[in-house]
Amino acid sequence: MLKTTIIGASGYTGAELALMVHKHPQLTLSGLFVSANSVDAGKCISELHGKLAGIISQPVEPLKDINAVAAECDVVFLATAHEVSHDIAPTFLKQGCQVFDLSGAFRVKKHGFYNEFYGFEHQHEDWLDSAAYGLVEWNHSAIKQSQLIAVPGCYPTASQLAIKPLVEAGLLDSVQWPVINATSGVSGAGRKASMTNSFCEVSLQPYGVFGHRHQPEIATHLGTEVIFTPHLGNFKRGILATITMKLASGVSDQQVSQAFNTAYENKPAVRLHQATLPSIQHVENTPFCDIGWKVQGEHIIVVSAIDNLLKGASSQAMQCLNIHYGFPELTALV
Amino acid sequence: MLKTTIIGASGYTGAELALMVHKHPQLTLSGLFVSANSVDAGKCISELHGKLAGIISQPVEPLKDINAVAAECDVVFLATAHEVSHDIAPTFLKQGCQVFDLSGAFRVKKHGFYNEFYGFEHQHEDWLDSAAYGLVEWNHSAIKQSQLIAVPGCYPTASQLAIKPLVEAGLLDSVQWPVINATSGVSGAGRKASMTNSFCEVSLQPYGVFGHRHQPEIATHLGTEVIFTPHLGNFKRGILATITMKLASGVSDQQVSQAFNTAYENKPAVRLHQATLPSIQHVENTPFCDIGWKVQGEHIIVVSAIDNLLKGASSQAMQCLNIHYGFPELTALV
Amino acid sequence: MLKTTIIGASGYTGAELALMVHKHPQLTLSGLFVSANSVDAGKCISELHGKLAGIISQPVEPLKDINAVAAECDVVFLATAHEVSHDIAPTFLKQGCQVFDLSGAFRVKKHGFYNEFYGFEHQHEDWLDSAAYGLVEWNHSAIKQSQLIAVPGCYPTASQLAIKPLVEAGLLDSVQWPVINATSGVSGAGRKASMTNSFCEVSLQPYGVFGHRHQPEIATHLGTEVIFTPHLGNFKRGILATITMKLASGVSDQQVSQAFNTAYENKPAVRLHQATLPSIQHVENTPFCDIGWKVQGEHIIVVSAIDNLLKGASSQAMQCLNIHYGFPELTALV
Amino acid sequence: MLKTTIIGASGYTGAELALMVHKHPQLTLSGLFVSANSVDAGKCISELHGKLAGIISQPVEPLKDINAVAAECDVVFLATAHEVSHDIAPTFLKQGCQVFDLSGAFRVKKHGFYNEFYGFEHQHEDWLDSAAYGLVEWNHSAIKQSQLIAVPGCYPTASQLAIKPLVEAGLLDSVQWPVINATSGVSGAGRKASMTNSFCEVSLQPYGVFGHRHQPEIATHLGTEVIFTPHLGNFKRGILATITMKLASGVSDQQVSQAFNTAYENKPAVRLHQATLPSIQHVENTPFCDIGWKVQGEHIIVVSAIDNLLKGASSQAMQCLNIHYGFPELTALV
Repeated sequence: MLKTTIIGASGYTGAELALMVHKHPQLTLSGLFVSANSVDAGKCISELHGKLAGIISQPVEPLKDINAVAAECDVVFLATAHEVSHDIAPTFLKQGCQVFDLSGAFRVKKHGFYNEFYGFEHQHEDWLDSAAYGLVEWNHSAIKQSQLIAVPGCYPTASQLAIKPLVEAGLLDSVQWPVINATSGVSGAGRKASMTNSFCEVSLQPYGVFGHRHQPEIATHLGTEVIFTPHLGNFKRGILATITMKLASGVSDQQVSQAFNTAYENKPAVRLHQATLPSIQHVENTPFCDIGWKVQGEHIIVVSAIDNLLKGASSQAMQCLNIHYGFPELTALV
Repeated sequence: MLKTTIIGASGYTGAELALMVHKHPQLTLSGLFVSANSVDAGKCISELHGKLAGIISQPVEPLKDINAVAAECDVVFLATAHEVSHDIAPTFLKQGCQVFDLSGAFRVKKHGFYNEFYGFEHQHEDWLDSAAYGLVEWNHSAIKQSQLIAVPGCYPTASQLAIKPLVEAGLLDSVQWPVINATSGVSGAGRKASMTNSFCEVSLQPYGVFGHRHQPEIATHLGTEVIFTPHLGNFKRGILATITMKLASGVSDQQVSQAFNTAYENKPAVRLHQATLPSIQHVENTPFCDIGWKVQGEHIIVVSAIDNLLKGASSQAMQCLNIHYGFPELTALV
Repeated sequence: MLKTTIIGASGYTGAELALMVHKHPQLTLSGLFVSANSVDAGKCISELHGKLAGIISQPVEPLKDINAVAAECDVVFLATAHEVSHDIAPTFLKQGCQVFDLSGAFRVKKHGFYNEFYGFEHQHEDWLDSAAYGLVEWNHSAIKQSQLIAVPGCYPTASQLAIKPLVEAGLLDSVQWPVINATSGVSGAGRKASMTNSFCEVSLQPYGVFGHRHQPEIATHLGTEVIFTPHLGNFKRGILATITMKLASGVSDQQVSQAFNTAYENKPAVRLHQATLPSIQHVENTPFCDIGWKVQGEHIIVVSAIDNLLKGASSQAMQCLNIHYGFPELTALV
Repeated sequence: MLKTTIIGASGYTGAELALMVHKHPQLTLSGLFVSANSVDAGKCISELHGKLAGIISQPVEPLKDINAVAAECDVVFLATAHEVSHDIAPTFLKQGCQVFDLSGAFRVKKHGFYNEFYGFEHQHEDWLDSAAYGLVEWNHSAIKQSQLIAVPGCYPTASQLAIKPLVEAGLLDSVQWPVINATSGVSGAGRKASMTNSFCEVSLQPYGVFGHRHQPEIATHLGTEVIFTPHLGNFKRGILATITMKLASGVSDQQVSQAFNTAYENKPAVRLHQATLPSIQHVENTPFCDIGWKVQGEHIIVVSAIDNLLKGASSQAMQCLNIHYGFPELTALV
């Protein structure tokens, strides 16, 4: 049994992770933590997340002595802010813990990236270099081997899973950039009070146009430029991404189908749609990414849907753990 | 033309009032104000309330010199916090302004009430005594005469309009208290950031059970005890109140119908339902209170629905203005 | 391993049952059926319920030869219309199948009840007599022994679990009837097209006032009259019931707490709230019934919340199965 | 006073039109009709649309003798199905009525268009030729003169208003097609029962990919190919369109701004956003089209938002009427 600790347990992804650890036959929940000055420190996790009542009753403790916490666990999930993950991950790593980081702190190995898009100077480029990018369906062996897994963001997961099969198979036009339009549920903004997330203010609208930091994460890992436009939707969870692309000259429907089928054969968390297109409802509260597409002439539209808190965060992190330790990939997830 | 100023224009009821003043053929909008230290001070009202763009483009000014503001208007709407209304209403009144107060500061003429339920000592009992309670359909002559109108709360409006015809006609059992179950849209909590109103946290639930200050407002003005249980609903605007009561012995269906029909004859903002029961959808964005009922044996269930921001606040305030000045009652409202 | 068949697999409760059977370590899914003339006959269950894709891929077959279907299974869940359950349950029972019926066909052992409230003459009063009412927390031994379990309706579950501890402890006033106000998500109406359930028409409103057939089901099983007012809410799943009652003279807070604590000690599907009151969000997608209450003077308000498709239907049916066969009560449910 | 009749008054756009006619100082409501075999025939319009109670109480009559109806009115709004409008418009026109058709029957003057996209052979090509396309901000003089106004569809309105200024100013790249991603509220599907519009089935998803008939309507009137992907959103009303385009080489931000500012100067129903981007909430229940944009390098993203039932249907029809008769453009609309 692997002693598993969650840092950032007061948030939505932390709660999902706690539930998964509880269900997992090879894991025990060794600790739940929040930052030392959080108003939630000391509360029972079921007080913060009412749905966990009757299932998990551990308190959420303030994270004070990181070394002591690290000494008491085998595995740690960091469901923390980018800067916090950046600062604390190395302590856990040096103590030999296996680390799954849900933040953006170790996702992009590109000089100057964190200065430009996250507003801080990265201090741990050695760890950044050795981190595996946890896009499960594409980085199996790195995830298996690495001590630090940087779990992708929610938009990057939905986007890359939809585009990467075409890029890898060389089926896209080289000039025209893929146009990604994606809409996320409000939980993507985290568990906090703000005017933007206030119930009466939420309404379908774009944000971060030409400026969202998931754009360079997507572009870097795909190896192709993209135009990424995120939207806030009036629902709690889920992401739908609609991606319009131009195919390379002469590419056939069959080549497209084959690219998707080959990429996701034996990938249990990806469900390819034949007749219909994805809908958020079908992936809510599931670890799946649904993908469908249509071709007309030289254009293709690919649609993907995930639960932003699961395949876009917590269940993908748990998939990474399952792969890393050799457990069946969807253990504790379905 | 009456020069009309709105204090508290950054909130939802303030925005509705601004629109009504704009539409009203006998009013001009002389000023929009927020408290002097508000982050919204200086912004254009359409920046705060996007739906007003292209219609009203006045700035929302910080309220500094109340006397100067009062000198420049004939009519003032106070869409402010209870304590603020309490503090500033007398200044406007002394300068001769006609005041419509949407807060609770002048609603209940009962010794010790404000200490007990609002947490402050009332300093202006003379004005409290002379204020008219703006429950339009029941206080026509007081509204016509008084310089200060205390517009009722949203729950009290929905509740009293549904119960008062039966109380006044003496049709209710004297022992058993009316049971009011009401559900309000989230806008009832005002325009502000909080965890409770955060999109992902909103879900149907009761609050303020046995402790909401609208209970004594309802009971005092009805002259009968009630059990009032408010709920937060997962919608933006509207209130539905379902009220279960015991009838006095021998009361017939006909007596009940007659009580409602008599009470609301020639009351254009009340719509009595014959065959169906009210629904929030039908009153959203309207100044109406829909009322329906069913009798079985000695029990009656009355259901009322209003838009909490309109008949529960702003449109009722404007109805009061129309009555006070002798304009048709629904001017600027339909 | 018990071979388990679901009749009515095209509906929402059928889909939930299929998922539970799939997860249950002692059950195998032996068949999924719909009525022979259903448009859904022959389709894959994941085509009807997209969230099941990648998990269950069995077809939903037309129910033609009931005897043949019965011969092939040990356990049958009837997620069918009342009349259908009434007609087909005896065939399964005579063949020795264990039957869990989610309809109202075998819930009330009262002469004339089905004529009055369901519009048909009951033809199987022997089975009706021997059926156990599957209100899990109160009928453990009958559920353990009976071959036919009549799983309670959604409103009756939420209502009875909230009221029964007080009735059984003799704490309620004998004159004043409990007033139940309950709001259900739209899935309570089943998976079908209708104007009432059309997205643009849904809005909080009461229905079936003084005439809903869950009222007599509640009253009969509680042994006390109640006033029951159901409402349609603008959400997909969940029920919140707010129940106002008068306590018998002299009853204390402590007696109330003791009644609830005693009733639900060691009942893993009931979660008693101490400080807060239930909310639909916390029970969505869970098998729990959350219960909280407040006392003031001689009045008590009890609030309960369940997922209407789970504790109000499918998970309660599975709890009954677990109890009947001696499996841990929440197997396949958390 | 113009006698104004609405055909198709049972639908959502019909109800909006009835309210506008009621408010309009130069119009009187001379008749409300539905097709002769409609279940709604004979009902009061406020029974179908509860929000109209207390405002309009006319019955919705079955349309039998079209000539007789035409003889009794000056103006007719056709809020009817495409085939119905196609069949009945000529009768009204021949009798001298001014016709505003909200269907697609007279929108596209292109040979074979109706066969291909609407499934019927157009029988009235003379009227089709003389019809004005009612895209208000771009066809002022045709609307002023024509007896038949074909009011644009909801998606075409949102799309064209966002793209046309750039096309007309020659600012777009000639190779790369504009990519339109648009999401509509459920009311866009009309007032009817269907599984797709059933509350529990609605969830953000694309539909009609590469096959929606608004694509050729948009492309024809813009004079440029487009890729149009509509989505169903989980809200009642509103459309948000996000349009990604490539600019012609060397086009500057200033040229873009100038194109929009010039196009919509003195167009009261279009609101150009400077700092922020549109949101559905701000246009709900308003006659406005909000437009905002951002440029990065050679790409531009334009976002537009409208109320699909108003600027996307009824209020645009009324704008057409106001222009045709020389009334102020937003009469009865704000």
